[in-house]
Amino acid sequence: MPLVRIDMPVGKPAEYRSALAQVVQAAMHDALGVPTAERFQIITEHDAANLSIDRGYLGVERSSDAVIIQVTLIEGRTAETKQAFYKALADGLQHALDLRRQDVVVSLIEVGRADWSFGNGEAQLAR
Amino acid sequence: MPLVRIDMPVGKPAEYRSALAQVVQAAMHDALGVPTAERFQIITEHDAANLSIDRGYLGVERSSDAVIIQVTLIEGRTAETKQAFYKALADGLQHALDLRRQDVVVSLIEVGRADWSFGNGEAQLAR
Amino acid sequence: MPLVRIDMPVGKPAEYRSALAQVVQAAMHDALGVPTAERFQIITEHDAANLSIDRGYLGVERSSDAVIIQVTLIEGRTAETKQAFYKALADGLQHALDLRRQDVVVSLIEVGRADWSFGNGEAQLAR
Repeated sequence: MPLVRIDMPVGKPAEYRSALAQVVQAAMHDALGVPTAERFQIITEHDAANLSIDRGYLGVERSSDAVIIQVTLIEGRTAETKQAFYKALADGLQHALDLRRQDVVVSLIEVGRADWSFGNGEAQLAR
Repeated sequence: MPLVRIDMPVGKPAEYRSALAQVVQAAMHDALGVPTAERFQIITEHDAANLSIDRGYLGVERSSDAVIIQVTLIEGRTAETKQAFYKALADGLQHALDLRRQDVVVSLIEVGRADWSFGNGEAQLAR
Repeated sequence: MPLVRIDMPVGKPAEYRSALAQVVQAAMHDALGVPTAERFQIITEHDAANLSIDRGYLGVERSSDAVIIQVTLIEGRTAETKQAFYKALADGLQHALDLRRQDVVVSLIEVGRADWSFGNGEAQLAR
């Protein structure tokens, strides 16, 4: 399962946040093959003072709308698949929210199949 | 050391949150052998709009009380040990809080022994 | 890139939080060789009830000012380099903020070069 943490500036309407989370889920489905129902997302909103995102690192001009999306997911995707996920995210957020493609920062953390419990005290994915 | 992040719905009384954190610590002690004093826990409360937990993935019926517990811990536990931890968590939270066993979602992240400092600028567990 | 999550007690002035984040960035630069512009930091403030940090584990006397700094970074640093980072953090925070060296708790999570996108839908560090 992926667990998604979205850290973003405070002050966006609920519809914006909901659409953002929906696009992240769609990008995980399309690029990573994650089932649509496999949705576990945490949004945390921050004052500008508590969210420091560099405005120019690597020549990418980020704005005060920039978000950080950190996904914990099962290991084994190729670099190409991850790249496709980043592209799907940036494309989808630009299309749905007019969020600039420069403002989508992503971090992945890979873990094993035994590292999840979806409830009931069981490790549903362990083999 | 484990570092525990508990993300949960806002609105539960302090006693509930305190008991939840206590049960997580007890389950880590009982199932993973973590010392009781090794307690480093972060609780973040979220509005419903900011906490998306699927209500039926894998046939587990989760409710609006569902919590996500993400534990960063030292690598090397077996799948059986992890399974025992998930069971201890679900059992303990049901017993202490009447939290439904379906509502306990867990994610583990394994790291190395040099990846911790407990203070004083030292890597106390590195060998 | 490192992604830094700083979890700390609520109630510190903005100048304190800003200086804390600045010192963390400086320590990453000095000890880990991270470019100064590579700054992606998330601060979350917590009530005392939601931040449980043991006051004595391993003989380190932590106070109510203790902070937890979790850094996701590219794999491959040696234990010696990590140790130098912990020391730089503790020294820097004591010097800049009078934060006690016992009160600096650090957790690292190592990931790969393909596990990052800095914007534009690209995996800038993948090789």
